[in-house]
Amino acid sequence: MSRDLKVGDTASVSKIFTDEDVLGFSNLSLDNNPIHLDQSYAENSVFGKKIVHGMLAASLFSGLLGMKLPGEGSIYLGQSLSFTAPIYIGDRVTATVEIVNIRPDKPIITLRTYCLNSEGSLVIDGEAVVKAG
Amino acid sequence: MSRDLKVGDTASVSKIFTDEDVLGFSNLSLDNNPIHLDQSYAENSVFGKKIVHGMLAASLFSGLLGMKLPGEGSIYLGQSLSFTAPIYIGDRVTATVEIVNIRPDKPIITLRTYCLNSEGSLVIDGEAVVKAG
Repeated sequence: MSRDLKVGDTASVSKIFTDEDVLGFSNLSLDNNPIHLDQSYAENSVFGKKIVHGMLAASLFSGLLGMKLPGEGSIYLGQSLSFTAPIYIGDRVTATVEIVNIRPDKPIITLRTYCLNSEGSLVIDGEAVVKAG
Repeated sequence: MSRDLKVGDTASVSKIFTDEDVLGFSNLSLDNNPIHLDQSYAENSVFGKKIVHGMLAASLFSGLLGMKLPGEGSIYLGQSLSFTAPIYIGDRVTATVEIVNIRPDKPIITLRTYCLNSEGSLVIDGEAVVKAG
């Protein structure tokens, strides 16, 4: 491993996902579900307003893992995700990754990965497994 | 549930992820890892050429679940992902979701979710849990 890593290390990033971001992700993922794109549809849904794709918000983990912790050269092996609450368009999401285990025999690292909304509520929870570079 | 669903039902979609797609996803996810964007960096990496973000390819599951199977009105509860092999830019990825369990007491559905590359090799494997609309 290129530098010291230890259990408890964290990295975070925040982003507000806009209508434009959500439209861009819909195009990339071929996910044109109206719950993300159609105001009147969303108002009549269980959510009451348009929501961000869970996989879009979860993609913040990819950047944190590959660029910050463990950082460059990491190989992404796995990710689990629980979408625990809706994320509304325009709300600030803060994604955090925290090292919870480092294998003693090889550089395989497990991190808790979670997102909070601007009220501090947990909206995504899960774990990532990466091989450090 | 709005229609009959049964174990073994599948839905699939194919997409070739281009450099432009990967750049777009880098901007959305704040993931500017050079393994996805920098030709010479990628050539000198373990992968040998630029790769698609695993989370971008996995986002195809979101569209399949929300629009095809179970389809509109579904609520995405969870997703696990194993990134089993690299996905190269320009290769065709086929994502499939297949119902593996339907709870008898409520409309909670588990689907196997996987991606194959153009050679038929498994590049992503995992499971999704959704509440059918």
